[in-house]
Amino acid sequence: MKDIKTIINEISKLNLANMYNDDFLLTWEKSDDELSGVFAVANALRGMRESNISPKIFVSGLAVSLFRDNSTRTRFSFASACNMLGLTVQDLDEGKSQIAHGETVRETANMVSFMADVIGIRDDMYIGKGNAYMKEVSRSVLDGYNDGILEQRPTLVNLQCDIDHPTQSMADMAHIIDHFGGVENLKGKKIAMSWAHSPSYGKPLSVPQGIVGLMTRFGMDVSLAHPQGYEIMSHVEDVAAKNAVESGGSFIRTNSMKEAFEGADIVYPKSWAPYAAMEERTQLYGNGDTHGIHRLEKQMLKHNEQHTDWECTEQMMALTKDKSALYMHCLPADITGVSCEMGEVSASVFDRYRVPLYKEAGYKPYIIAAMIFLSKVRNPSQFLNEALEKNTKRWIG
Amino acid sequence: MKDIKTIINEISKLNLANMYNDDFLLTWEKSDDELSGVFAVANALRGMRESNISPKIFVSGLAVSLFRDNSTRTRFSFASACNMLGLTVQDLDEGKSQIAHGETVRETANMVSFMADVIGIRDDMYIGKGNAYMKEVSRSVLDGYNDGILEQRPTLVNLQCDIDHPTQSMADMAHIIDHFGGVENLKGKKIAMSWAHSPSYGKPLSVPQGIVGLMTRFGMDVSLAHPQGYEIMSHVEDVAAKNAVESGGSFIRTNSMKEAFEGADIVYPKSWAPYAAMEERTQLYGNGDTHGIHRLEKQMLKHNEQHTDWECTEQMMALTKDKSALYMHCLPADITGVSCEMGEVSASVFDRYRVPLYKEAGYKPYIIAAMIFLSKVRNPSQFLNEALEKNTKRWIG
Amino acid sequence: MKDIKTIINEISKLNLANMYNDDFLLTWEKSDDELSGVFAVANALRGMRESNISPKIFVSGLAVSLFRDNSTRTRFSFASACNMLGLTVQDLDEGKSQIAHGETVRETANMVSFMADVIGIRDDMYIGKGNAYMKEVSRSVLDGYNDGILEQRPTLVNLQCDIDHPTQSMADMAHIIDHFGGVENLKGKKIAMSWAHSPSYGKPLSVPQGIVGLMTRFGMDVSLAHPQGYEIMSHVEDVAAKNAVESGGSFIRTNSMKEAFEGADIVYPKSWAPYAAMEERTQLYGNGDTHGIHRLEKQMLKHNEQHTDWECTEQMMALTKDKSALYMHCLPADITGVSCEMGEVSASVFDRYRVPLYKEAGYKPYIIAAMIFLSKVRNPSQFLNEALEKNTKRWIG
Repeated sequence: MKDIKTIINEISKLNLANMYNDDFLLTWEKSDDELSGVFAVANALRGMRESNISPKIFVSGLAVSLFRDNSTRTRFSFASACNMLGLTVQDLDEGKSQIAHGETVRETANMVSFMADVIGIRDDMYIGKGNAYMKEVSRSVLDGYNDGILEQRPTLVNLQCDIDHPTQSMADMAHIIDHFGGVENLKGKKIAMSWAHSPSYGKPLSVPQGIVGLMTRFGMDVSLAHPQGYEIMSHVEDVAAKNAVESGGSFIRTNSMKEAFEGADIVYPKSWAPYAAMEERTQLYGNGDTHGIHRLEKQMLKHNEQHTDWECTEQMMALTKDKSALYMHCLPADITGVSCEMGEVSASVFDRYRVPLYKEAGYKPYIIAAMIFLSKVRNPSQFLNEALEKNTKRWIG
Repeated sequence: MKDIKTIINEISKLNLANMYNDDFLLTWEKSDDELSGVFAVANALRGMRESNISPKIFVSGLAVSLFRDNSTRTRFSFASACNMLGLTVQDLDEGKSQIAHGETVRETANMVSFMADVIGIRDDMYIGKGNAYMKEVSRSVLDGYNDGILEQRPTLVNLQCDIDHPTQSMADMAHIIDHFGGVENLKGKKIAMSWAHSPSYGKPLSVPQGIVGLMTRFGMDVSLAHPQGYEIMSHVEDVAAKNAVESGGSFIRTNSMKEAFEGADIVYPKSWAPYAAMEERTQLYGNGDTHGIHRLEKQMLKHNEQHTDWECTEQMMALTKDKSALYMHCLPADITGVSCEMGEVSASVFDRYRVPLYKEAGYKPYIIAAMIFLSKVRNPSQFLNEALEKNTKRWIG
Repeated sequence: MKDIKTIINEISKLNLANMYNDDFLLTWEKSDDELSGVFAVANALRGMRESNISPKIFVSGLAVSLFRDNSTRTRFSFASACNMLGLTVQDLDEGKSQIAHGETVRETANMVSFMADVIGIRDDMYIGKGNAYMKEVSRSVLDGYNDGILEQRPTLVNLQCDIDHPTQSMADMAHIIDHFGGVENLKGKKIAMSWAHSPSYGKPLSVPQGIVGLMTRFGMDVSLAHPQGYEIMSHVEDVAAKNAVESGGSFIRTNSMKEAFEGADIVYPKSWAPYAAMEERTQLYGNGDTHGIHRLEKQMLKHNEQHTDWECTEQMMALTKDKSALYMHCLPADITGVSCEMGEVSASVFDRYRVPLYKEAGYKPYIIAAMIFLSKVRNPSQFLNEALEKNTKRWIG
């Protein structure tokens, strides 16, 4: 149990006061201490679960989940995190609910929150909408709390928006920290966040944006590679550039996958849609222009087809540091010859990295739990120490 | 903690014995003591939650929810109430289940109830069907219990039927009691339950019926206002008239919104469909007469259009007592210029009352919890006293 | 409490070690001791619940449910069992999830299992697919556990596959044991598992297969009756034949419902689709041959129509032992004149047996709970004794 105690001791030295009773929307809205706090609490919670100790915060309580896009892994990660902490998930299903019938965000946000402790939202489809929607929900329930409508402030967790995917990027980072034996070993490491070919269109930008927005904070050399025309949001590039300066790392953009891969310690090849096309698509959806959407999507697919060489092959991997960079992906990947004809990654590369990839995904439930934990526990290290001592078995059998 | 103790003391003096192990379907099937018991327990549960005390009745247990109409707020209210008391909600989704494939009510009711403590049903679409369905489910599981099929009797909560919407009207009443500083201050207060214009058809009758069926029991002067042709069920009017006589209040019907609003302490302007049209619609659905349904719905919309002046405007509000009646609505409201062109209420009226409206809705989870509580706890005051003493924290963080 | 203690004592004498941390897929993969263990634990859990004692194993934990076919009773049985043991069910809904978009079984199985203790699967539609899918999921999560991806091994419960329906057949068997006053009274009893007419096609084979694969293990005389062309999987017939030899009973196939019913102590008349037709249908679905599927289904209906005399009427019941065989069905049944014109059973027979039929179904939640329990509790009798002593009330009210 010594390890968990060490972690708890580290937590006690961090300034996490502002996380209490607050949301987690973008990693770059959080201080270094706060990010360290999430990693440390995630580790502590994992250690406790592996030691069969329950870290329940709630005897009862509701977590509202609102998925405006399909999801398997994030849905289950959120459900797992909530369950571990004692919350019951209640889905706000727009199909089932009246939300589609013109109810305002403010009203619905309050109506579902009378006993809600947490709200998890995925809204990643439309540029300029997802994060804005989350902020509106947050404002609504904060007002509701201040007006005496809600007995508690339900805090939000961003489960993917149009700008960032913090539970993904933080889980990815936890994986990297673990792989390299500590955050102190990351200075000067090179990570390639690269576009990769996929025979589909409209994949969200939040993963590459989340990665460059977060990984630039640890003194790493971050390369963002993509074909011309596949730009991400420029204000996120600004965030990354600023982070790199502050952390003593670098942030480089390139239109060459090879350049990014050369000497890289970590590669993250993944398809995404161009920002400009996604913005146009959002407008077309807004106008209900079905014809325009079809036209655009065809065009996007055609563009993708011009870059089938952006594939993470064994040859590409051979360019990396000691030919053995850590290959990462948020999953599911488009695997050439497996899930599609020409995809993001060759089957042999994917196969070699399957176990680490699955482990990468395995950090997410703990990252989400840590985000919720820090928004709901006023004195994290004290709580964890008490839970350790209390030693309530999660599984009695 | 003195307040909760006072409430518990009041509960101890009420005759609530018949509520134990029984359903809550219509408010007029309940005695005055029983209604007082629901309000008091709801208050006690709210007080305990605000003091971070868990009032769990169940270590494990199932609550079946069956929504035969869309719902956001009632669904979440039911989920919140169940969660607070220790029950897990399992949706009986007719889309997913075999219920649509000709299974009898009796069989399904038993099949889902082997370990069910509570069944919540919303079935408000078809005249003559919803309440009848609830009674059939109730009979089925009572038989099942008596026949030794079920180990416990799952008790029903009516989450809205064709006749009444008791969780709504009771929550509304709790709001009124709170607003006027106690049930003893309601004698002689005037409440206007008024039809209002909406550009939609087929809104259930259960809210106006529930309101006049309940509010007439507290010595208030209840006005039911609607255009000619928008009658509610006559037997509910009879209930309201009888209630008014017994409580020393009055029940007046009028075809003038102004008359109802004049001097009113409370106004509840809300759209509903005419009883006769809803009855015809039920038959058309029964016959699968799609053509007839379309024709009727067009006709209903056209009728509505003749009464766009039935809107709760500032001018209408100026007619009320001290120009400041309590404006109520079950939400979502059709707000002129916001959710529709010509609706039930003008934006400025709605805006002024937003906070009280949201608070009104906030009573519902506690009202539902109180209904479940009283059907599951043999000695309510003793249980609550013990829970207070036990003082189990709901939220440890 | 003596009865439960007796049951626990019996459990302590059984060899159940191999069930710990293992799946329950087919009854014939389990030893006699293991089946006895399931029946005994189911009884103990039921006794404890009837005595209002909670047998929770988990303070928190997830149970993944994956229904690839509609289900009401099995869904609720699984939910009830999980709830009783302290697990929260999270549905893996293929409609909602990305599973339909080409994700591999291996990946999804791991992604939903980071904190999953149990996985329940229903996959009964396609011959050669359902059980194979379960095995693949099982292998995937076992690999995940061994590779350090998953912190625990989620164990599987077969909630119906193409081959067996063990939670149904075991619940049926528990009903039979109870009816005849003990498993020791079953030697020489005659059970007729008979095809019956239904105006629908494509009913799974897993029930008749599960019944003959299980009931032949108790020294009973098992008759499998069906019209020519309605054969079940031959390898299951082989299992049944082998079982019968080993248990000192018999397994007879016949094309005469009368022959099966004559002198039977138990009759189980139920429709199913011919194995060969189901196999062809699976291939047609695989090829996306909508036209072929339509043709085949019409043909299946037509075949069924030739056998409307395969109905469990009062005349047929009069052939059975003392004219009073135990009539069984997995429900819902096709009842002549009630749910269809010409069905599996006449209304008068069904009516007479309604209460026992519902009780039969009532064993399922406990059977599922027992299967989960034995895969999650290392020392079952010790755990149950401790739970008895601890005496935690499930329902405090």
